[in-house]
Amino acid sequence: MESYSHITPYLRSVEQLMESRLEAEDKMVYGLLVPFLRRGGKRIRPVLSLLSCGAVGGQYEAAIEPAAIIEMFHNFTLIHDDIEDDSQFRRGEPALQMAYGVPMALNSGDALYTLLWRELTKLKLRPAKLVALQTMYADAFKRVVDGQGVELSWIRGGRFDVSEDEYLAMIGGKTAALMGLSCEAGAFIGGAGKRAGKALRQYGESLGAAFQIQDDVLNVTGSFEKYQKEIGGDISEGKRTLMVVHCLSKAGEAERKRLMGVLSSHSRKQEDINDVIGLLQKHGSVEYARKRAASLVGKAKRSIARFPDNKDKTALLAIADYVIKRDR
Amino acid sequence: MESYSHITPYLRSVEQLMESRLEAEDKMVYGLLVPFLRRGGKRIRPVLSLLSCGAVGGQYEAAIEPAAIIEMFHNFTLIHDDIEDDSQFRRGEPALQMAYGVPMALNSGDALYTLLWRELTKLKLRPAKLVALQTMYADAFKRVVDGQGVELSWIRGGRFDVSEDEYLAMIGGKTAALMGLSCEAGAFIGGAGKRAGKALRQYGESLGAAFQIQDDVLNVTGSFEKYQKEIGGDISEGKRTLMVVHCLSKAGEAERKRLMGVLSSHSRKQEDINDVIGLLQKHGSVEYARKRAASLVGKAKRSIARFPDNKDKTALLAIADYVIKRDR
Repeated sequence: MESYSHITPYLRSVEQLMESRLEAEDKMVYGLLVPFLRRGGKRIRPVLSLLSCGAVGGQYEAAIEPAAIIEMFHNFTLIHDDIEDDSQFRRGEPALQMAYGVPMALNSGDALYTLLWRELTKLKLRPAKLVALQTMYADAFKRVVDGQGVELSWIRGGRFDVSEDEYLAMIGGKTAALMGLSCEAGAFIGGAGKRAGKALRQYGESLGAAFQIQDDVLNVTGSFEKYQKEIGGDISEGKRTLMVVHCLSKAGEAERKRLMGVLSSHSRKQEDINDVIGLLQKHGSVEYARKRAASLVGKAKRSIARFPDNKDKTALLAIADYVIKRDR
Repeated sequence: MESYSHITPYLRSVEQLMESRLEAEDKMVYGLLVPFLRRGGKRIRPVLSLLSCGAVGGQYEAAIEPAAIIEMFHNFTLIHDDIEDDSQFRRGEPALQMAYGVPMALNSGDALYTLLWRELTKLKLRPAKLVALQTMYADAFKRVVDGQGVELSWIRGGRFDVSEDEYLAMIGGKTAALMGLSCEAGAFIGGAGKRAGKALRQYGESLGAAFQIQDDVLNVTGSFEKYQKEIGGDISEGKRTLMVVHCLSKAGEAERKRLMGVLSSHSRKQEDINDVIGLLQKHGSVEYARKRAASLVGKAKRSIARFPDNKDKTALLAIADYVIKRDR
């Protein structure tokens, strides 16, 4: 994106750092991670860390390693989530367990998670500051894993009485916590005071929630070429998205039954998926989700409205707009 | 065991601490972990931590939380290993993924791992000392996960040219590293100097290697009632144990083919498993493994021979003998 081209060299450093760490390890265990990380992705979390660091007057360099650790965590969750959700594709290529089997994929996720914790014990910071940063990471990581667990337990428990608030709390962990951490950690490393750190975390969390809702929307309205995941995959996986929650509250009994039936069956039939998408469209659930995401983007932007104007703040505001305009 | 009855109250505190930590969390995500941890197990790792702390003159109380963290890590690895190895039973009951499905079991392992790292950032120690302890944990955890990854990659890669040294290096990570950490961390918390800490780590690592070899032996010679895992499970899982490595080096071409055929097929047929066990017996591979384990136990005991005599040292020596005498 244009808006943050000024941090491109630092973003490259984040990627190079991740690669060099992995390439230094045993190929038998870490070999499949290097090409996985090279698949790319939006790198939105390290971008947020770098910009947040800059927005509070810090040096981008200082945020490179903390940002790399967060991006490694994100990739760890993708690997395990794809196993849990039985997802077929990731970034346009087979999910890791499709390519290497569940055992190796699962273990490589554990290896990545372990490696990033080791990095977190070795960052060159004063010990007291390092421990404060670690606690920030541990708390956010826990919210991410717990959020994923809540979503899985809804699916396994056959729960369809999920409320909008429960959905928002779940994505508040699964997706928003890590974007909040990306901003908060960048600000912390950049020397921000408590108030600025909290404002950036709130920006990141609202942005993250909007991001997830938009992701759910793209999952039913996108094209594989751009989105690079299977369209309707969330439906096959039985996900209780905001659109599903909304639709269940609007649809009549027969339609509710059809919707719950397809979600429970984990069907991959195009006919079933199209039926569900049709119901979500018919009841205005897609539109509702888009509006909810837009409102969260507004909230994100207001969180940092009082920050002094500079190119980092400008970029953060542009990213907020991008999150709901994106088609990939 | 008689030899460490003096630390029983502290061992109960370790168990209570683990339970109370888990019970404070969301039942949807952590609910299945409490009964899993209550299944028990030998608790050998916390025992080693408590005794090592005592052996260097420390207070047992100080080692309770560090010991609980290690036992939590151990349980995390069991959960993920059982998924990776497609194991059916754990401690006499269905493996977690057999009871709750792969997604919930996998996520609960991640939740446990995340929770213990959060504990590790919040231990009440001076920050510099805490970071030193964390690095010790991170390095050992990495060896465990890497060891498991190496074993998986042998199986996936169809490798049968594993040497005894490669096998020993693999279990040096998979099993020995965590027992070494249990001792080293206990000693560190107990205020040991570098030399005593290193000696206890070496004791723990030799003990751990002996423990793994004995575990492999019990897997083919034990009874389900005592061992509480499926007998011959390692054969179905295609594990390259020391016995298999030895047998492949002794058997003729037809027997080698039969052995490799069964291991590659992941057969659960009793006939296939009995054939392999027969070959291991015939070529003296079980006896060879027992001797190797006994020699490692001798090495473990020598590592702490110069420690001053006290009941903690006596217990550590008795545990070393127990490791190869146990039938469960």
